[in-house]
Amino acid sequence: MTKQPVYLDNAATTPLAEEVLTAMLPYMKETFGNPSSTYSVGRMSRLGVETARKKVAQLLGVPPAGIYFTSGGTESNNTAIASAIRDLGCTHIITSPIEHHAVLHTVEYYSRTNQIPFSLVALTPAGEVDYNDLERQLNQLSLAGVKPLVSLMHANNEIGALLDIARVGRLCKQYNAIFHSDCVQTVGHYPLNLLEYGVHFISGAGHKFHGPKGVGILYVHSELKIQPLIHGGGQERNLRAGTENVYGIVGFARALELAMEEYEQESKNIAHLKAYMKQELVKAIPGVGFNSPDNSLYTVLSVCFPKSPNGESLLLELDMAGICVSGGSACSSGDDSGSHVIKALNKNADCNTIRFSFSKYNTIAEIDKVIMALQAILQVAPAAIAIK
Amino acid sequence: MTKQPVYLDNAATTPLAEEVLTAMLPYMKETFGNPSSTYSVGRMSRLGVETARKKVAQLLGVPPAGIYFTSGGTESNNTAIASAIRDLGCTHIITSPIEHHAVLHTVEYYSRTNQIPFSLVALTPAGEVDYNDLERQLNQLSLAGVKPLVSLMHANNEIGALLDIARVGRLCKQYNAIFHSDCVQTVGHYPLNLLEYGVHFISGAGHKFHGPKGVGILYVHSELKIQPLIHGGGQERNLRAGTENVYGIVGFARALELAMEEYEQESKNIAHLKAYMKQELVKAIPGVGFNSPDNSLYTVLSVCFPKSPNGESLLLELDMAGICVSGGSACSSGDDSGSHVIKALNKNADCNTIRFSFSKYNTIAEIDKVIMALQAILQVAPAAIAIK
Repeated sequence: MTKQPVYLDNAATTPLAEEVLTAMLPYMKETFGNPSSTYSVGRMSRLGVETARKKVAQLLGVPPAGIYFTSGGTESNNTAIASAIRDLGCTHIITSPIEHHAVLHTVEYYSRTNQIPFSLVALTPAGEVDYNDLERQLNQLSLAGVKPLVSLMHANNEIGALLDIARVGRLCKQYNAIFHSDCVQTVGHYPLNLLEYGVHFISGAGHKFHGPKGVGILYVHSELKIQPLIHGGGQERNLRAGTENVYGIVGFARALELAMEEYEQESKNIAHLKAYMKQELVKAIPGVGFNSPDNSLYTVLSVCFPKSPNGESLLLELDMAGICVSGGSACSSGDDSGSHVIKALNKNADCNTIRFSFSKYNTIAEIDKVIMALQAILQVAPAAIAIK
Repeated sequence: MTKQPVYLDNAATTPLAEEVLTAMLPYMKETFGNPSSTYSVGRMSRLGVETARKKVAQLLGVPPAGIYFTSGGTESNNTAIASAIRDLGCTHIITSPIEHHAVLHTVEYYSRTNQIPFSLVALTPAGEVDYNDLERQLNQLSLAGVKPLVSLMHANNEIGALLDIARVGRLCKQYNAIFHSDCVQTVGHYPLNLLEYGVHFISGAGHKFHGPKGVGILYVHSELKIQPLIHGGGQERNLRAGTENVYGIVGFARALELAMEEYEQESKNIAHLKAYMKQELVKAIPGVGFNSPDNSLYTVLSVCFPKSPNGESLLLELDMAGICVSGGSACSSGDDSGSHVIKALNKNADCNTIRFSFSKYNTIAEIDKVIMALQAILQVAPAAIAIK
């Protein structure tokens, strides 16, 4: 292993930005009070939490009262899905086979325990939602007098396929459906204007955009009245009990602010890294293919390497070469059954799938290093490429 | 307000120990990987999490597989109560009227939605559990073939009343009940040996013993098979989905380790502070009384100040004098209805209740300062006391 690994798994988690740690530290030191306490030390913590809420709300184009802090994207997804069924009268769920397990397993659980059917929307071969099929399903449910929950992710974490969230928002409005979008891969990666999208719930997670782990947000549209998933004290206006993770919350807001300040420049840089890697892979690896659609999340490139004698241990050998990438999502790494996303899309079984995901801290030199390592592992000599 | 406030609300939250922050920082900087990732950077995070789990387990006298990391005590309490009903066949809940809202509101919620009755155990006038009443209830339910969940806190957060947890454990075993104990005020404050207590679930929260906010533990006895409250990825051996709060987990373990290393000395020092404060209050404030039983949590002293013209604004005036204390629990601070604990115990309504709670960072000089401030606010001249 080299001393400085090349980290290209930013869809799994990202390093905490120094600016974010700097914002968090005062709340890990002197401003340690419980935000529910009414005295000075408590009020300063409360101010930290509420300033963070305002900042996040403003950056997402919603009123502060719509932003709830949670322990992460998974809890946010669970809260939204549970409450749509329990509090909002949804009796059918439409989702997709390539959602993150935080949605898919939750839908399966609540569907099973509440005897609520769910259906999967059709996908294009590229992994994008078939909007005609979505509308067909919504129309059918509407005619049957059924109020559905639509839960579709804004960007897929494995292949980067993007959802036209505003289009789905309009469809949901037209057919009186509740619309939840897992935005864990897009909060902090795109400027979002949630009110415009007509979405009822979105989920975000701090650690996906150089913020802290252990903190996320749930946005809830102001017209919804929902109950908590976690009961107890009156924190988060009675929607999420438990002493607030003050430094996590402050860090989330600072990370989002930073990401949006830098968006124009950094999104261009990262998109360039992705394009460069794609181009260099095509040059270097005969038969290479791509699972990411052309117009996909600029941080994710899912690559299909042709099977080769050395390909089986590709991840392991890349790790040995100091390169951190993943076969699918980190959350399913322990699972030997392979990626449910790649399976659902019927991608070529003769592939070794590797997800490369980029951040502002990556460089062209790192991509070059990865290409060279891949050539060595797959025994594709650079010379052989040159004379092709 | 003075520059350095006197912080005597350590039952609400505690300052993060410097040693704990030091342990956390490497995981906020270089070791940032997702513990589910299989490459080097991920494995180092995994190692941090699993080392923390072993440490916590060892300090609590249980196997590592019994320790689950959560976002805090409230989530742990919710998980235990939900699973006792859903997975373990409990069809009645016995709890007490002075539990924390994280238990009481959760019991009320699940009782209501699952049509499961709950009953309250009788308390002694001091706020301790009436064990005869508990046994009577358990016996009655047992004869009726009902399997109950008993949820009783180890130490009350407002008055410090202690539970004989091993005695309740024996009763629960005898009558085939599931036993959950909210140990949020005792994890990190006493050496616990959970296997000996015969408890099935306990909850703990890092920020109550100089650890981080946003992280807690749920201990689950090895003979139980339960499902998650939060669904998704396979983290925490499929019991708690969501990317692990790695630095929070590492901080929790370091804080517990530190607390247990220092226990013998610090518990003596803190108990001395409490005894000193009690003695000085008796000397200084005519008619003062105490809600905390004689043998109570050494960190908490709940005081009953006789009503006086200036008493109404006692908390406010103490805050103005730079003294941070609370009227009840922090989690109910926003609630104007007063403490449910004090109400349940029928404590004298002619009192202004103030909870003082101490940590290793408090000093005798701080107590003296508080006594003087109280004398000034309540207009009890020191001289008047002297000539009594």
